[in-house]
Amino acid sequence: MSNEISLVMGSSSDWSTMKEAANILDEFGVKYDKAVISAHRMPQEMFEFAQGAVSAGIKVIIAGAGGAAHLPGMIAANTVLPVIGVPVQSHALSGMDSLLSIVQMPAGVPVATTAIGVSGAKNAALLALEIIGTTNPRIQLKMTEYRKQMHDKAAESGDQLV
Amino acid sequence: MSNEISLVMGSSSDWSTMKEAANILDEFGVKYDKAVISAHRMPQEMFEFAQGAVSAGIKVIIAGAGGAAHLPGMIAANTVLPVIGVPVQSHALSGMDSLLSIVQMPAGVPVATTAIGVSGAKNAALLALEIIGTTNPRIQLKMTEYRKQMHDKAAESGDQLV
Amino acid sequence: MSNEISLVMGSSSDWSTMKEAANILDEFGVKYDKAVISAHRMPQEMFEFAQGAVSAGIKVIIAGAGGAAHLPGMIAANTVLPVIGVPVQSHALSGMDSLLSIVQMPAGVPVATTAIGVSGAKNAALLALEIIGTTNPRIQLKMTEYRKQMHDKAAESGDQLV
Amino acid sequence: MSNEISLVMGSSSDWSTMKEAANILDEFGVKYDKAVISAHRMPQEMFEFAQGAVSAGIKVIIAGAGGAAHLPGMIAANTVLPVIGVPVQSHALSGMDSLLSIVQMPAGVPVATTAIGVSGAKNAALLALEIIGTTNPRIQLKMTEYRKQMHDKAAESGDQLV
Amino acid sequence: MSNEISLVMGSSSDWSTMKEAANILDEFGVKYDKAVISAHRMPQEMFEFAQGAVSAGIKVIIAGAGGAAHLPGMIAANTVLPVIGVPVQSHALSGMDSLLSIVQMPAGVPVATTAIGVSGAKNAALLALEIIGTTNPRIQLKMTEYRKQMHDKAAESGDQLV
Amino acid sequence: MSNEISLVMGSSSDWSTMKEAANILDEFGVKYDKAVISAHRMPQEMFEFAQGAVSAGIKVIIAGAGGAAHLPGMIAANTVLPVIGVPVQSHALSGMDSLLSIVQMPAGVPVATTAIGVSGAKNAALLALEIIGTTNPRIQLKMTEYRKQMHDKAAESGDQLV
Amino acid sequence: MSNEISLVMGSSSDWSTMKEAANILDEFGVKYDKAVISAHRMPQEMFEFAQGAVSAGIKVIIAGAGGAAHLPGMIAANTVLPVIGVPVQSHALSGMDSLLSIVQMPAGVPVATTAIGVSGAKNAALLALEIIGTTNPRIQLKMTEYRKQMHDKAAESGDQLV
Amino acid sequence: MSNEISLVMGSSSDWSTMKEAANILDEFGVKYDKAVISAHRMPQEMFEFAQGAVSAGIKVIIAGAGGAAHLPGMIAANTVLPVIGVPVQSHALSGMDSLLSIVQMPAGVPVATTAIGVSGAKNAALLALEIIGTTNPRIQLKMTEYRKQMHDKAAESGDQLV
Repeated sequence: MSNEISLVMGSSSDWSTMKEAANILDEFGVKYDKAVISAHRMPQEMFEFAQGAVSAGIKVIIAGAGGAAHLPGMIAANTVLPVIGVPVQSHALSGMDSLLSIVQMPAGVPVATTAIGVSGAKNAALLALEIIGTTNPRIQLKMTEYRKQMHDKAAESGDQLV
Repeated sequence: MSNEISLVMGSSSDWSTMKEAANILDEFGVKYDKAVISAHRMPQEMFEFAQGAVSAGIKVIIAGAGGAAHLPGMIAANTVLPVIGVPVQSHALSGMDSLLSIVQMPAGVPVATTAIGVSGAKNAALLALEIIGTTNPRIQLKMTEYRKQMHDKAAESGDQLV
Repeated sequence: MSNEISLVMGSSSDWSTMKEAANILDEFGVKYDKAVISAHRMPQEMFEFAQGAVSAGIKVIIAGAGGAAHLPGMIAANTVLPVIGVPVQSHALSGMDSLLSIVQMPAGVPVATTAIGVSGAKNAALLALEIIGTTNPRIQLKMTEYRKQMHDKAAESGDQLV
Repeated sequence: MSNEISLVMGSSSDWSTMKEAANILDEFGVKYDKAVISAHRMPQEMFEFAQGAVSAGIKVIIAGAGGAAHLPGMIAANTVLPVIGVPVQSHALSGMDSLLSIVQMPAGVPVATTAIGVSGAKNAALLALEIIGTTNPRIQLKMTEYRKQMHDKAAESGDQLV
Repeated sequence: MSNEISLVMGSSSDWSTMKEAANILDEFGVKYDKAVISAHRMPQEMFEFAQGAVSAGIKVIIAGAGGAAHLPGMIAANTVLPVIGVPVQSHALSGMDSLLSIVQMPAGVPVATTAIGVSGAKNAALLALEIIGTTNPRIQLKMTEYRKQMHDKAAESGDQLV
Repeated sequence: MSNEISLVMGSSSDWSTMKEAANILDEFGVKYDKAVISAHRMPQEMFEFAQGAVSAGIKVIIAGAGGAAHLPGMIAANTVLPVIGVPVQSHALSGMDSLLSIVQMPAGVPVATTAIGVSGAKNAALLALEIIGTTNPRIQLKMTEYRKQMHDKAAESGDQLV
Repeated sequence: MSNEISLVMGSSSDWSTMKEAANILDEFGVKYDKAVISAHRMPQEMFEFAQGAVSAGIKVIIAGAGGAAHLPGMIAANTVLPVIGVPVQSHALSGMDSLLSIVQMPAGVPVATTAIGVSGAKNAALLALEIIGTTNPRIQLKMTEYRKQMHDKAAESGDQLV
Repeated sequence: MSNEISLVMGSSSDWSTMKEAANILDEFGVKYDKAVISAHRMPQEMFEFAQGAVSAGIKVIIAGAGGAAHLPGMIAANTVLPVIGVPVQSHALSGMDSLLSIVQMPAGVPVATTAIGVSGAKNAALLALEIIGTTNPRIQLKMTEYRKQMHDKAAESGDQLV
């Protein structure tokens, strides 16, 4: 049985980005599974993972990939769970290729896309928690507190403008 | 008390795009509220809508907007519910401005972004249903059937290649 | 047993582009199979097609797709045959999304990408024939003749500049 | 009571850019207020700031933000004062996202947008001074002198071409 | 003696865009001058116009241009008045060239840039009125009423979602 | 008599990219010729190389170039062999110019384009081997093994996520 | 013996753009040769044309092409005459591909690039005339008159703003 | 009396790019004038320079500028001499803004645009020499020799591929 949130990425080199998502989940005390599942090098595992996700008890999948980033869309094609796609910043095109490959899905198979890079990884975790939070009042309350802390930190940061 | 899914847009001119989301929800027999709430022309209503969304019983918000599309992000800033943003295709820049304004959110406030235009509107509805479906087996099952029909229709469409 | 060239596309709506490839193959008198195989709506068929391609006797696969165009790359991930990807012109972003989704493949799994739209479809067929031609002198000779005719037609077209 | 020019930004990390605006204002001997007001993390303060700006005696607001830069547009939506938006250079997309999010405002709510990054921050301050200068001959005269010095410095810089 | 607002454009073909600015000014009952002043075909007149603008009593200049749109920046280089630049939508590049040519001004000479095309033209007029309004309570009040009407029209437009 | 694969590039500065293709060919134990043939500085040699390629026994040509990358397309114009184009990452535009110059070939003369930079160079070699492999079972088998190793390495890399 | 100006294009379909250059030359009463010379379909003729241009008495070459527009650069590679490149507006990418393929030439082989499409074609002719005019006072005087007429027409066009 | 080639730039910071043009001219032993003439900070000098260029004996003007690069176009608007524009690489947008501001000139006033950055600066000098060379056999011959050396150096550089 898997945890409710699953965090996958196309390459171990995406981990420097995706661990930011992991850190958020850790901060919320929510357990998750993490794995490298390459759409192009491990297609069979990707299919099995996606097709078995519902019965494994997963609720939300976060998938990060860069370049011709097919992982989020191909997982989405094989499950009816919400899939969150994180466009990892690529070398030549700064993640514009990753973004378009993930967000421009055809009608029928959605991928919930977040921002390019680290901000997107963090927000993918927060979005997953918001989704869990729609039926988990404890998580939703924690998110409200998280927002409050974020607010306070931003409000206080004005003192640094010197 | 609102329905679980709320469908808002920045302008009545976005309706030709966003009604595709409404059609999907109708097809699934899921009730939703819909409204024009302009971030720039109705900021007060936008705030009140977003801040009251949790207590109104809303579970997922779909927000469509074009150009400097601030609506999805500003709603997200005022609620801990999952917000799905649909980049409406704009005139001069074909929705690239809408897309970047919606997807490039800073860490802390996620918007689940879908594709530019009609495909994105449809997928926003499907994503909302997938989210509801994580704790509603009936909806999740219906989504599985929907995928099945989509599959069959695609599989049969090969006969049209003449 | 399949023909040596297989022509697949993500949607029947891609046919208006991809039939230009078919026309070229017809013109060369080379048989081919054609099918709609949607990466997102028919993932299982896509896998089976790709994984069985070598043993079916296919030599080259031409795959056209638009938007988040995952079909060529995902077929390539499941076969060691040369896969030619045609970026079909998309609505909002004119095929720039299709192009980047197809061409920006990670190291290890190549897709031979051609131009966006109709020119790309024609060239995909010609490229497939060039590949077959490397060991089929009759096809290679025919290609030389095709080039000659193309040359003559271009050379004569200068008379139209009035 | 506030100063006539108010300088706000979405994050303390924008200060390295926006302090260039502050330096210009200092150079002109014009007082200003400065603050971090995040559209996404401090929406309530943003609203209150914008809605109270006229009665606080503010004449021009300079707002800098990066990425999905909603701050300038959302302030503009809540005040009838001229709002100058500075697109802060973002990491992945070099400020193209910031620029489009700020400049592509819908009809009805203008944001006076300047260049991406440091040049834009400086020009935002100069533009604010030009606006004040339309009814303040002392400031307008000072701007004329500033231009004169800029001219002389440029004219002399040709000697450095060695 | 000129009116306080001057509306210039690089070509009579820009008028279909720029008349939207004129309409807004008419609606506010504010007089303005309008002229075609091409930076590239009438450089001398452009210089004389810009250099004489302050003494002619002009307070704000609105300048629209497309393509390599040099008019707003070159007027700004020759006056210390606030100059608002409208990127007219160009044929091949949809106004992206106009936008970058206008907004990316070097430090020292600001141009207050608005959106590409008709929305930008309207907003240029509204921005000019906001600037005038900073010291003209009647105009500022009228702008508040204008916003109120815009709000009401948007709020009522939700009834059209059928 | 040449080897079956020929590896050319527009400048010796492209070698840092293109040697990645060479390394792959070495790894497969497939011999190849390599040369600098600049389309713009050595046009005569380029023509002679391309026109003589078939009779020299070459089967596939890999051509890397950056900026206004004319080499792959001009070689393709002078031979009926399959030509693989590698867009070398350029300085100012990160290879977007190289990519479009190579991939947007007119109907009639295909270039099999791979990704920008190092990934594209590697994939060019793999694509060439796949082409050779269509009639060379030993190479095709080796490619299957290569994929297997790549798979295993990816599958094991998940352990590095700490 | 050729005329001093030679007008070539990659396809007869470019003529609708390039005839605007021809019209300008006609208006100036300057003779020119015109031809379709496709870089990709008529490479041999292109080489012969470029290599023989100096001895044929040509002074300036205007070359128009679209997409992967190799014609101007390849002609420039084979002659020391000034070559003016006109990026013809392409279908999918609106001439951005044509522009980058023409303008981003490597150091050593310049192409004088003009704007995308019809404006660029006209300007190519004017630029050729300016070049001829540097040593032909009659042409240079005519250009001065042409500018004067253009100025007067622009100055008078302000009357159309109604 | 000026030299036949004049090399101007918008800022002394452009010199690191533009000195590459100067080096080429030095290498050819052709004298030139060089100056900083900022379109935005020294508009009067710019006008006087451009309007007096013909009578000063200048034959070709090379103008480099970055960002909203108005210098080449505004000089061109004030002279009938050929003007070569060099898009200096800008900070945020890598020179894409410079390129579009320079190349997208309206019909009537051409600017001969070269590549972004150092390659463009070198090519601007070579293009100026080609223009002079059309009526100066000594320069044209030298260009032929320059090409020959460039060819030989490229041809020999293949030895470095190790």
